[in-house]
Amino acid sequence: MTEFSRRNLLGAAAAGGAVAVAAATDGLADGQPPFGPTPPVLAGAQLPSFRFQLGAVAQKRWDGGWAKEATVAEFPVSEKLAGVLMSLAPGGLRELHWHANAAEWAYVLKGRCRVTTIDPKGHSQIADFNAGDVWYFPRGFGHSIEGIGSEDCLFVLVFDNGYFSEFGTFSISDWIGHTSPEVLAKTFGVPAPTFANFPKSEVYISKGPVPPPLPADPTPGALNNGALTHRYQLLAQRPDVYPGGTNRLVSQRQFPISATMTGALMRIKPGSLREMHWHPNADEWQYYISGRARLGVFGSHGRARVEDMSAGDVGYVPQGYGHYIENAGTDDLDLLIVLNNGEYQSISLTARVAANPHLLLSTNFKVPEATFANFPKGERFMPA
Amino acid sequence: MTEFSRRNLLGAAAAGGAVAVAAATDGLADGQPPFGPTPPVLAGAQLPSFRFQLGAVAQKRWDGGWAKEATVAEFPVSEKLAGVLMSLAPGGLRELHWHANAAEWAYVLKGRCRVTTIDPKGHSQIADFNAGDVWYFPRGFGHSIEGIGSEDCLFVLVFDNGYFSEFGTFSISDWIGHTSPEVLAKTFGVPAPTFANFPKSEVYISKGPVPPPLPADPTPGALNNGALTHRYQLLAQRPDVYPGGTNRLVSQRQFPISATMTGALMRIKPGSLREMHWHPNADEWQYYISGRARLGVFGSHGRARVEDMSAGDVGYVPQGYGHYIENAGTDDLDLLIVLNNGEYQSISLTARVAANPHLLLSTNFKVPEATFANFPKGERFMPA
Amino acid sequence: MTEFSRRNLLGAAAAGGAVAVAAATDGLADGQPPFGPTPPVLAGAQLPSFRFQLGAVAQKRWDGGWAKEATVAEFPVSEKLAGVLMSLAPGGLRELHWHANAAEWAYVLKGRCRVTTIDPKGHSQIADFNAGDVWYFPRGFGHSIEGIGSEDCLFVLVFDNGYFSEFGTFSISDWIGHTSPEVLAKTFGVPAPTFANFPKSEVYISKGPVPPPLPADPTPGALNNGALTHRYQLLAQRPDVYPGGTNRLVSQRQFPISATMTGALMRIKPGSLREMHWHPNADEWQYYISGRARLGVFGSHGRARVEDMSAGDVGYVPQGYGHYIENAGTDDLDLLIVLNNGEYQSISLTARVAANPHLLLSTNFKVPEATFANFPKGERFMPA
Repeated sequence: MTEFSRRNLLGAAAAGGAVAVAAATDGLADGQPPFGPTPPVLAGAQLPSFRFQLGAVAQKRWDGGWAKEATVAEFPVSEKLAGVLMSLAPGGLRELHWHANAAEWAYVLKGRCRVTTIDPKGHSQIADFNAGDVWYFPRGFGHSIEGIGSEDCLFVLVFDNGYFSEFGTFSISDWIGHTSPEVLAKTFGVPAPTFANFPKSEVYISKGPVPPPLPADPTPGALNNGALTHRYQLLAQRPDVYPGGTNRLVSQRQFPISATMTGALMRIKPGSLREMHWHPNADEWQYYISGRARLGVFGSHGRARVEDMSAGDVGYVPQGYGHYIENAGTDDLDLLIVLNNGEYQSISLTARVAANPHLLLSTNFKVPEATFANFPKGERFMPA
Repeated sequence: MTEFSRRNLLGAAAAGGAVAVAAATDGLADGQPPFGPTPPVLAGAQLPSFRFQLGAVAQKRWDGGWAKEATVAEFPVSEKLAGVLMSLAPGGLRELHWHANAAEWAYVLKGRCRVTTIDPKGHSQIADFNAGDVWYFPRGFGHSIEGIGSEDCLFVLVFDNGYFSEFGTFSISDWIGHTSPEVLAKTFGVPAPTFANFPKSEVYISKGPVPPPLPADPTPGALNNGALTHRYQLLAQRPDVYPGGTNRLVSQRQFPISATMTGALMRIKPGSLREMHWHPNADEWQYYISGRARLGVFGSHGRARVEDMSAGDVGYVPQGYGHYIENAGTDDLDLLIVLNNGEYQSISLTARVAANPHLLLSTNFKVPEATFANFPKGERFMPA
Repeated sequence: MTEFSRRNLLGAAAAGGAVAVAAATDGLADGQPPFGPTPPVLAGAQLPSFRFQLGAVAQKRWDGGWAKEATVAEFPVSEKLAGVLMSLAPGGLRELHWHANAAEWAYVLKGRCRVTTIDPKGHSQIADFNAGDVWYFPRGFGHSIEGIGSEDCLFVLVFDNGYFSEFGTFSISDWIGHTSPEVLAKTFGVPAPTFANFPKSEVYISKGPVPPPLPADPTPGALNNGALTHRYQLLAQRPDVYPGGTNRLVSQRQFPISATMTGALMRIKPGSLREMHWHPNADEWQYYISGRARLGVFGSHGRARVEDMSAGDVGYVPQGYGHYIENAGTDDLDLLIVLNNGEYQSISLTARVAANPHLLLSTNFKVPEATFANFPKGERFMPA
């Protein structure tokens, strides 16, 4: 199912909005500024590695949870997107904070967590997330994440800036700890000694009681939500089904607040593949959830690279680079894909070839026209 | 008063437009391209200074006026915004010119001036500005500024590029002085000797007679204005009133041409403060008009800095950085704030904390829940 | 004729769309991100050369056609736009490919060619282009170009990135040649030996039979076009007529898919000139088709440069720089202009001067008011 047919399902009212958004982002070549020079990491005669073994990184541990990260510092090719794998125990709290230089997209792998957030219009929201759910916070929006329920909550965070962690994450305990009690007293309208026992440095992850359930029926007047929800139930989405597996896509069209990122949850059957394709408007960040894969990347000028990927690995494909993902194991391959653009764009090689007369293909590839007699008539997406 | 409540006042028709603009700018994370690495000036273990004593800079003087400037060359942290303080005597003319690499936002501190401008659609406008007025010229629009009335006119110019002055200001006398008389003759359709006595180099500020008043009642057919005015009467705006002072805000919502900058005129009472907050989508440039202040800036990773500010000082706060402004004197503190985004976004620490259950705050800050009993229930903005 | 009067001709329905686009692009200062520092090539005391002799570059030759290019590597000032001159023999095929880091704009100088293209929504199009036609492919859209008819087809390609060719052009033969037959077999659903005789490296330009004419009357169901056509008949457009020549303009307003580039086809009579002007929102790339010219460029701070231009030369003018183009020969001067912005913006010096009272001009230029008695009352664009 293409993005186009998805759009048709949205009907006339939504289509009006879609046109407005398209006009807006087209003004900058699909929502991105003009490119400059090729980044040095991509400018060599050989392609760099597109694999980072996030699973093998040592955890940073706190009482309440742990985290490990993949930024451009650890994974040089990932200039436009960074990722963090985080686990919170029940009652473990990733404290109140914001990111000055990146939006945050997340997928919950297992367990449950509660998120509180605020936006610059003064709206705030408290919402629970289950395994299979996605959240998105625009750059600079305040948020916290807390493990709830009876097991650890594991999730993947993705940021639309490979440099995100470098002096970009602002924790409120750190801020309060580095502000004079007099200013805090004026700000909050309480006596200065109130802050005597507050932490003097960043808490990052803390641990407390598991909070009570949210009221199923909010008291009238209890909510202060904004127009756009931060939660999207991706796993609950009915998947697009292909001979080789399934795909669930969440772009700004499905999840309006997600203006700068698109995600996909993909299951590829043994022996099948997400076919050769490229994304005109985005870099791609991958997290391999389970199974074994081969990622093939084509970087122009005769440069290509195939790498084996396993559960816990991160993959990366620069904007416009050709690539495919093949299930190289005997079990289903589950992976998460995140693109740094709220509009999903993809072109499959099969569709591209199918859009040409056999005579042209014969000239292009210097083989007889009959070679193409049994080629597919359009996109296959995920063939068996 | 939050931006949200402002929007509500605009009614349904305006709201439609607001949605369109939001959709457009959201496509690039609030109208800004993705971040790359942290700028070196912000990447050290210590924060740099956020104060520049513009008042202490020597004036560049011309017959007709003077100017002094703060660009990234003088004030390294100010990468996204630069400023100029300029004074024009009656009849002093900042000549016809344009800026190739920045839009210009201005606030008239005292006196009166007349501005002529042109846009790329062929519209031109001549308008008088009084103390308290703001103008905005999009990048590349031609303009001139002339002192009128009986006293010197003093104003602050702010540019949305810290590098603006470096080979970015194009004066028409300079251009004509470096063009052959033959080309000028063809361009203007007059004899080449017409230009014999024109200046051979840049005039910058000139001096002539004070021009006559503009006609109160323009002759029919005399005007060539575009759809969007360049003038906004900021001081004349009814301020938002808080226990600690007042604020007047002018974003693109109030002043449609101002697509890339937002301004605010703030008065903080002695002992009060503009509370702890951050701007998700913009750097902040400050000009201290009168009074004494303490500016506190929080830069993540345990980095914080408090600096004393006086009249004539420029302050700067990078995008997403926590900050507050405290009146540290015995008189009212008046200051001007300019942000490099036409959409105003701000999140206050009080609102962020208020949006969480006390149990969560207790876990976050490792203090008893009762600590938060008297905390405010929402944003205070400018507490007494 | 100004862009404004053009807009009026479009009527009310189009105007609604125009407003939406304006709001969108205004959010980023006319569709462009904020400037940083002046590029080194423009930061010296002297201006660099704005002329590149593309005609004198050696052709890269293939059986089927040739190409020569001007990127920032050959022509240092051209950071935002690059160009290629290409010729295809009848049946010569510039193979299936895409550009990862630039949109492509083209003008056909002579002959005819056939283009096949695909977009990320799955639409594909096959269209024939004649001399005088323009095409535009957004960044990353797949395309091919084939010479048809009885003579060589010559065209100019322009890319909105001076660095476009450096690891940015992806050919499908190169990709297939560097992918294992097993993966190709799975992708296309055909036996692996099918690809045994495919090229092992990039074909670039190939040669085959001239394809048959496109059906004048497509079979019902035969087309898969998207909403926006890739073809605009620029030479067929009724030109704007001036005393000194003619101009045909094609911006996003005339050619909606052309979101990031605007083109113009200009004819200047002997002795006439495209008058002194600047573009607030775009760099300008020029291709001199025939005749002889003088290009005058003004770069602020007393920096100006005049260069002689001939057929086959490329000229370049950075955003906001003042410039004029004078016919310095005895024949008509024909040239192509391409700007890296879908919205056309231009301000003429005559219009800028005319928008001021003579008293102000007298003060500005230190000459008597009477000097300006015979100056033009507005823009001249292309005076005789």
